[in-house]
Amino acid sequence: MAERPVVIVSNRGPLSFRVGDDGELVAKRGAGGLVSGLAPLVTGTSAVWIAAAISDADRRAAEQGVVDAEGMRVRLLALDPDAYRAAYDVVCNATLWFLHHGLYDLARRPRFDSRFRAAWDSYRQVNAAFADVVAESAPEGAAVLVQDYHLALVGGLLGDRRPDLRLVHFSHTPFAPPGLWRVLPTDLGRELLAGMAAHHACGFHSQRWADCFTACCAEQLGESPRTFVAPLAPDAADIRRVAAGEACAAALAELDARVGDRALVVRVDRIELSKNILRGFWAFEDLLDRHPEWRDRVVFGAFVYPSREGLPEYLAYRQEVEATVRRINERFASPGWTPILFDPTDDFPRSVAGLRRADVLLVNPIRDGLNLVAEEGPLVNERDAVLLLSPEAGVWDQLAGAARAVHPYDVSGTADALVEALVATPEQRAAEAGEIRRRAEARTPEDWLADQLAAAD
Amino acid sequence: MAERPVVIVSNRGPLSFRVGDDGELVAKRGAGGLVSGLAPLVTGTSAVWIAAAISDADRRAAEQGVVDAEGMRVRLLALDPDAYRAAYDVVCNATLWFLHHGLYDLARRPRFDSRFRAAWDSYRQVNAAFADVVAESAPEGAAVLVQDYHLALVGGLLGDRRPDLRLVHFSHTPFAPPGLWRVLPTDLGRELLAGMAAHHACGFHSQRWADCFTACCAEQLGESPRTFVAPLAPDAADIRRVAAGEACAAALAELDARVGDRALVVRVDRIELSKNILRGFWAFEDLLDRHPEWRDRVVFGAFVYPSREGLPEYLAYRQEVEATVRRINERFASPGWTPILFDPTDDFPRSVAGLRRADVLLVNPIRDGLNLVAEEGPLVNERDAVLLLSPEAGVWDQLAGAARAVHPYDVSGTADALVEALVATPEQRAAEAGEIRRRAEARTPEDWLADQLAAAD
Repeated sequence: MAERPVVIVSNRGPLSFRVGDDGELVAKRGAGGLVSGLAPLVTGTSAVWIAAAISDADRRAAEQGVVDAEGMRVRLLALDPDAYRAAYDVVCNATLWFLHHGLYDLARRPRFDSRFRAAWDSYRQVNAAFADVVAESAPEGAAVLVQDYHLALVGGLLGDRRPDLRLVHFSHTPFAPPGLWRVLPTDLGRELLAGMAAHHACGFHSQRWADCFTACCAEQLGESPRTFVAPLAPDAADIRRVAAGEACAAALAELDARVGDRALVVRVDRIELSKNILRGFWAFEDLLDRHPEWRDRVVFGAFVYPSREGLPEYLAYRQEVEATVRRINERFASPGWTPILFDPTDDFPRSVAGLRRADVLLVNPIRDGLNLVAEEGPLVNERDAVLLLSPEAGVWDQLAGAARAVHPYDVSGTADALVEALVATPEQRAAEAGEIRRRAEARTPEDWLADQLAAAD
Repeated sequence: MAERPVVIVSNRGPLSFRVGDDGELVAKRGAGGLVSGLAPLVTGTSAVWIAAAISDADRRAAEQGVVDAEGMRVRLLALDPDAYRAAYDVVCNATLWFLHHGLYDLARRPRFDSRFRAAWDSYRQVNAAFADVVAESAPEGAAVLVQDYHLALVGGLLGDRRPDLRLVHFSHTPFAPPGLWRVLPTDLGRELLAGMAAHHACGFHSQRWADCFTACCAEQLGESPRTFVAPLAPDAADIRRVAAGEACAAALAELDARVGDRALVVRVDRIELSKNILRGFWAFEDLLDRHPEWRDRVVFGAFVYPSREGLPEYLAYRQEVEATVRRINERFASPGWTPILFDPTDDFPRSVAGLRRADVLLVNPIRDGLNLVAEEGPLVNERDAVLLLSPEAGVWDQLAGAARAVHPYDVSGTADALVEALVATPEQRAAEAGEIRRRAEARTPEDWLADQLAAAD
């Protein structure tokens, strides 16, 4: 059949706007795995990307309809700011994200009260606005690629208005198993599942997340929507470009000066509850405790940066992380040696410098949709770093048998794995790193896109 | 075949001891569902009950071997106090209880560090001590009924020392689903499952918990141990005896004086995170908020009492519960009306008075092995109380279709259910309460015991 036109629909788009000195709108390209993964599809093509207007400048851009900038065609949606905020903060970030990642302290949260029900109405309203734009503007027969949990209801709310379209939903998060899904009020949980199931197909990074979705649908809806598995892949050229840049070289020189000839353990993460940052530090502390011979011979470089600090849960977590770093550094530091390097500013070239210099890369999330760092790190690392990876990350599917497993809750087991990684021979390291690189290069973002488009047929 | 001799093995036994004025040991009968359920089996029979010595007086009793008292034959085990404390507090209460009830705040807990590993060794040691006593003292061919998660390893640690015995393990808690079971360090999770699987059969209060156990065994061990389902049942005669007693009558008179002709919502629970006490109060607050016509016309009688306050999690939860009660009472109280009656002392006749007087009984746990209050309440209630029951309690299996479901996380839904219960007609209430009583009387503790013994064959 003829190739379908393409529409991408996501909460955050590939462009954000600011007002320039001359009062004109200036477009800036965004970052993040979703944007860099989807960008090739819209760059220099007729595809249109529909996303929410976030800033005031974005709202001005929204008035112009489809904007052509940076080689992309983007249509921003100006939503009611209060409704958008309630949908994004309360439903998306504080509820659905927590649910899919299993982050609830269930004796206390969630609290599905009247405030939540109002936010849920906003979530519906935001999803309906996206569905309306799709209904009105998508080209005949288009493949509409709806991204992530922010927009689970688009397919359902579109209804039968545009039977010519093929809507695909793709989840970038894990998916809650049925026992956890039941935490949602019954009506609302069914509405969400039915909204997703109304898409032509639902995609996930891992077969495990697809199976959880299928099991939830079987239990709550008594039906089996069509699913597909398509892991996103790192943009190898892009990360290597950053690694070869001047900013990265400068950061690496600075890092080398601080680390010296010591071994370096690295993590690169948002400060995010699911990333399991606390237990990484506890494991490092356990290592220094039980293996004093490693004191002053190893440094933990934590390239982590704040996230979602509008939510009290994230601010509290950051404070715990910082207090833990302080405590461990005060306990073990000696003249000339700071055990943990920690400076929570978002500096991508510096993080890449950390990935280049690492002897051990620790990726120990308690639950993670995919985790691209586990593949990006090995692509730029220059020392055959040992990769310690939690099997609860979706990317484990690609790296099992090559990366070493660390159990995310097993703090003393993680400490043991760190020691074993630090004493691995150059031959072991070379063999493991080679196999990991081979697997990380096996797929590209274009493969992922092709899988989504194929699912539309 | 001939009837087997019986041995019961549990952490807490049916008797505790104190030193009397004359320096002699005085036995006192314990309370709790497990003890009253199993007591008929050991009262006036040759059965022996093996349990841990808790107090110093218990330790003295332990030196005497099998003690005959209160018509029962009890053998207490004096364990190393530090090992017992570590096994009980760290492994049983802070880990296995939290795991089976899904109570972890996973971004922070559990923390399987060196301290935990030491406690795990203690848990093994305590289980081994029980296994040794069984090996040495159980009569030829006995049915050995091992109770609960404190003693999951007894069957495995007994090994092949006594092939003549038939060991049955019974879990009084829910059982964690596989996704949650994986939170345990892999070696330790397998050791626990294999320890349980080494019993002749493993029993549970609900098919759902048996299915979770089976799924964990399939994933972690690749085998399917024999399971059975045998819900414990209320001791109707016992609870009615308390209800007919003088202490209960006095408590009821006092309660009547405070409640007057207002409607009374009642809950009876340990102050325990899984019981969902906070959301019960939030729902009541939501009711008073959205339905001001009910102010001064309804009272929430919270007959709750402290539990496990040696664990910081429980103390923190109690403080949150108390702060919530204070806040709601300060917000709504009027002269002559206190919205929530709350006095956290453990007074069983007073709790039974609450059950007698209730117009609505709220049982909304987030996860509960069985929950006997949901059946005991209706047996003594005198006003055809409406029962609001969480489907996450094991006893839902017996009461579905008779009790009204309340979703434990749905605070505004629970408020709606409270209002609907308060306006139910006498005819509706009589019909529902009659059916619930019929079901609550359908099984006895003796049936439960017979099921355990049958599982030994």
